[in-house]
Formats: sequence, structure tokens, C-alpha cells
Amino acid sequence: MSTWEEKVHKVTPYTPGEQPKNKNVIKLNTNENPYPPASSVKRIIESADYEVLRRYPDPLASGLLQALSDSYGVPKDQIFVGVGSDDVLAMSFLTFFTSGERILFPDVTYSFYDVWADEFRIPFDTVPLREDLSIDKEGFIGKNSGGIVIPNPNAPTGLDAGVDTLEEIIRDNPQCVVIIDEAYVDFGAESVLPLIDKYDNLLVTQTFSKSRALAGSRIGFAFGSRKLIKYLNDVKFSFNSYTMDYITQQVGIASLQDRDYFRMRCLEIINERERAKKEFSRLGFDFPDSKSNFIFVHHKDRSAVDIFNALRENDIYVRHFDGERTGDYLRVTIGTREQMDALFGFLSDYLGEG
Amino acid sequence: MSTWEEKVHKVTPYTPGEQPKNKNVIKLNTNENPYPPASSVKRIIESADYEVLRRYPDPLASGLLQALSDSYGVPKDQIFVGVGSDDVLAMSFLTFFTSGERILFPDVTYSFYDVWADEFRIPFDTVPLREDLSIDKEGFIGKNSGGIVIPNPNAPTGLDAGVDTLEEIIRDNPQCVVIIDEAYVDFGAESVLPLIDKYDNLLVTQTFSKSRALAGSRIGFAFGSRKLIKYLNDVKFSFNSYTMDYITQQVGIASLQDRDYFRMRCLEIINERERAKKEFSRLGFDFPDSKSNFIFVHHKDRSAVDIFNALRENDIYVRHFDGERTGDYLRVTIGTREQMDALFGFLSDYLGEG
Repeated sequence: MSTWEEKVHKVTPYTPGEQPKNKNVIKLNTNENPYPPASSVKRIIESADYEVLRRYPDPLASGLLQALSDSYGVPKDQIFVGVGSDDVLAMSFLTFFTSGERILFPDVTYSFYDVWADEFRIPFDTVPLREDLSIDKEGFIGKNSGGIVIPNPNAPTGLDAGVDTLEEIIRDNPQCVVIIDEAYVDFGAESVLPLIDKYDNLLVTQTFSKSRALAGSRIGFAFGSRKLIKYLNDVKFSFNSYTMDYITQQVGIASLQDRDYFRMRCLEIINERERAKKEFSRLGFDFPDSKSNFIFVHHKDRSAVDIFNALRENDIYVRHFDGERTGDYLRVTIGTREQMDALFGFLSDYLGEG
Repeated sequence: MSTWEEKVHKVTPYTPGEQPKNKNVIKLNTNENPYPPASSVKRIIESADYEVLRRYPDPLASGLLQALSDSYGVPKDQIFVGVGSDDVLAMSFLTFFTSGERILFPDVTYSFYDVWADEFRIPFDTVPLREDLSIDKEGFIGKNSGGIVIPNPNAPTGLDAGVDTLEEIIRDNPQCVVIIDEAYVDFGAESVLPLIDKYDNLLVTQTFSKSRALAGSRIGFAFGSRKLIKYLNDVKFSFNSYTMDYITQQVGIASLQDRDYFRMRCLEIINERERAKKEFSRLGFDFPDSKSNFIFVHHKDRSAVDIFNALRENDIYVRHFDGERTGDYLRVTIGTREQMDALFGFLSDYLGEG
């Protein structure tokens, strides 16, 4: 007789970035926002009616859909919400990439794509970035693939491929769904959102985790054609009808209300990023020209692992990815002015370039 | 060239119970708790630190695992948490039931099991309940099946199969994982939890949605052997590392703190259910002897649909399921004393038995 263990679907799980227990750590390793969420979020939590928690939440998250619709000028039936953009992307892989045909994504990219492909047994090929770490659009064109997913800006490079390049890829692939993962788009890149009415195979995913400083609340969303969103909802409602809890729906709505705060904080992070580029250059680093809330840096003389360890010993956490094309780099999240000053102060001493 | 639509994984979604907009409705249709959550939940929400929402939540939900461990006397590495027990069950189907062998569940049961089986392309057979709507254990024994899932108490019958019967089924099926879905166990049935150390193929799932009055927060959990929980976590972390948001983790912990409140409210619902049984009998209904927070009732003379519609017109919502074996019944959630008085007041008039 067989055993139950032989029947188990065995996978190698994704490893999330380290969350240090020590509160004094300068945490530039998980692309979190260094500023708190809008104060409208604070108010909604304080005044939340805990008694309604006995009831199931609105499975459609209608209020949040309406708030997203108002903010982005997209009809509600062209918006999908999920528990973080990881949930939105996982549901999208399950819905759109199960034809058995090979899907494509960049070789250096968000490290969850191949995890989902393995989990859902989706065959895939990776398209190598160019030497300068930019997206090689030729690799996505004329391939008649089963699906495409490209983050823009890409992670961990931070590079913006530009709407024209992305539109060429979308236009060339009407045979499959093309997902543009815009987790970092609010830090200066241009969104492909206006293209959703032109291409019914385009899904644009975004998140509240980065630009809205709500990683702790788990809210992701996607825009697409009515057909696309309908298929996605059908799969989602067959998986778990009530994924987003009541308070989180309220938090999302509150966050969208304060547009000025949102714009101000994004601008602060952009300004700090541009200053960081100058500092990194001065210290002998080179890097792709990031449009995100992180910079992917490489030092001309010193190894990435050595710098990583030296920073870590001094309670500054950044992210290092193994791998042939990424092992020489560090991904550094943009923190507050104060945090970045501490980072550059340490690096100046350590590299002897002060 | 093929179209993207041909590649879509098309499913028929589950239909959740109706959530009426009218606040005056007496809502006995979704098995929600009629009482609010513990006041410790209110306090934790009011005092929640909204600034930490900028950070990712603890992906392991360690605090909640510890609180569950303390409450149930089960080591943390034998506990899994998810976004409602629907999430726990969906992940379990994905992890344990993908061998391609047929899985078994009762013909009259929670209506999501066949939705997940379809979604994940898992072949299944249903085992008919006996004439009296009890679980037919012979149908689950000697079948060498690929997986088994049985709710206890079963829904929508409310019947408790008893630990001895369930243990026979678990013992006979070492070749597959057996899931006992105990969503309603706190209302008087005996849990199979003590068996997890005896049978490493047993997964016991529970939820905060019913007995803890937290349907709006989405917290489910499961107990099992270390091996089982490890496999389940591997799949979960390959799907979405950060499923449970920060505030929900705090809400779960707070809810577990107030044990007296929990026991008191469960007892109130049990007492009201026993009173309801007498009332239903008096009014000409028969029903399986429920151990849950609902009763599955059938009237000797009047059609279920007629009663359903009459109730609905009077703002009392109960649940009706189509189907050969369920169409003559109504599932009535146990509400407060006041709500149940209103229900029986109306039924007495309507049925002319007052």
C-alpha cells in the first residue's frame, strides 16, 4: 500500500527577506516604505466597529473597489483586489498560465515567479536581461508563448523599460495574457494602465505595500479588461470567497483618501533616491538608473558579500541575492534621510573614501 | 494563432450566502455568531500601532501560533494558520490531494469541497449520507482513496459522527491524508484533536469565524503531525508568504486571551439551539440532532421554498440549498434569544400552529 507522503505535492518554498528582531536595525532590505501610512489609516483603525467582525466581510470588497475606481478612473468591473500583490499574481498564474504552454519572464526578476510556476507546474523559459540589465524586448517578441510576466520597474534592477517597449511586447502577444507587475511604479516610472482598454490581454498589477506604506495590511490590486477580471474573479471565488478581512478593506479605502500625503511621501523617496545615486557614485559604486524605491549597486573594487557583512555587523540590513548575474550586487532600499546618512557615513569610513 | 482566452482556466465559482444591505434583517443564513467578539479584540484594535503597518507582517504569525499553542496544548510546529479555514482547506487540497487518485467526501456537505476539487483538477467521489443524514463510515473504509475530507459536525446537517467513527476511518486510511473539518466543533461535538499524535495522516481544521465571532477577520487554523504541517507550510510559502496581515494576527491573539467569554458565548448558543429544537418540533419540523450553531429543518407539510420565501419577505433570512437531498430543508443559524423569538413568532403565525 502506498503512503500518504507519496501523494504530497512537495515544493521548495520562497525565502522572505530577513525581519530582524532588534529594533535599532536600519532596515533597507525588504523595500518597505520608511514612512508611516497616511493618518487617515490611523483614524479608521481607531474608530473601527469591532462588533461587525462577527459577520463575514464583503466578499467583493465593493467599498475598496469603488475607492480604487475613483482614484484611478477605472470602472469597478475592471479592477481585482487581493491579499497583497503576491495573492493577485498567484491567482493570475492559476487563471491565465495553465495551458501547458511555456511562459516567459526575465532571468533576473522578482524571485517569486519561478516559485509559482513550479507550484502550479507551469513550464517556463527565462529571457536574459541585456548586459546593462535592461529588458531585452526581442526575447519576448515572436515567441508565441503561453504567458508573459514583466515587472516594471524591474526588481531588483529598478529599471523602467518604458511604455513604448512594453506596448510592443503586449501588441506582439495577443495569444496570451501579458502581466505587467507595477509594484514599484509610483516612484517615477510611467504606468501602462492607459493601455488596458486597447489590449484585452493586458493585466496591470499594483500594491499598497510600497508606495502606500501598507506592507503590513496585505492589499494588492490589478487592472484589466472586463473579461480578464471576470476570469480572475471566478478563480479567486473558487479558491476563497472571503480573502480580505473587514478592517483591511477599511484601511485600503482610508489610504486612498489622502492623495496629498501619498504624493508627498513618494516625492520624498524619489528625492532621497536621486541623492543616494550621487552618494553611491562618489563612493565607487555603479548601478542601473533606478526608478523604484531601491537601488541595485555594485562596487568597483569590493565584493558585495563583504560589504553586506560589514553593514550587517553594524546593524544596517540590505539585501543580497546569490546567482551569477546578481551575486556582485546589493539591493538597497531607500530609507529616510537620516537612515541614508547613517548608511553613507558607514560606507565612507568602510571604503576609505570619506 | 490561438487566443489568450483559450488558455484561461475556466471555473464555476462558489456562491457565498446572501449579505443583505438592510440592517433590520434577522440574518440566520450564514452561520455567523450573533454576539460580538471578545472585548479584548476591541481593545487590541483601538490600541494597534498603525505605524508598523509600513512593515511586512511576521510571515510565520509566530505570536498567533504561540497563543494557539498555549490555548490548545499543541506545539507550534504542529499548527498551521491561514486566511479563514477556506484558505487552510484550499492549501490542504493543493498540498495533499494532487496525486491524481480519487478523493472522497460526503454527498451532502460543505459546498466548497467540490469547487476546490474542480479548481485543482482533483478527481473525486462522494459518499452518500445514510437515510438519516448521518455519515456512512463504510463508504470511507477499504476504498484505498487518494484523500478524505469530512466535516464534523457535518454541514448543513449539524450531525456529530463521534470520535470513534472518525478514528475508524482515519485508521483505515494510512495511505492518504484525512482532513476532519471542525469549523463547528465548539458547539458541543468532541474534537479529534487528541488523535493527531497517534495518526500522522490526520489534519484537523478549525476557524475563528463561528465560535469566536470573527468571520470578518479571516482566521483559520489546522493541527497535525509535524510532517503534515511542514508540507502544508512549504506550499503556503510558495503561494503567498505574507497572507495574514498584522492587525488580524493581533486580533487572533486577543481573541484567544478571553477564554471565559468564549466558553460563555458558546454555551449561550448551545442553550438557544436546544430551545430551538423544542420550538421546531412543536411547529411540525423534524431535523437531524444538531451539535453545531445551526439546525437543518424540514417541515412535515409545508415546502421549504415556501417557508424560505415567507421568511424572506418578513426580513428573516435563512439558507436554502437546491438539490435532491437538501431541497426539502432549510438551514437556520442559531441567533440571539430575541432573534429566535422573532423567528418562532413568525413561524407560529405562518404555520397556524401558534
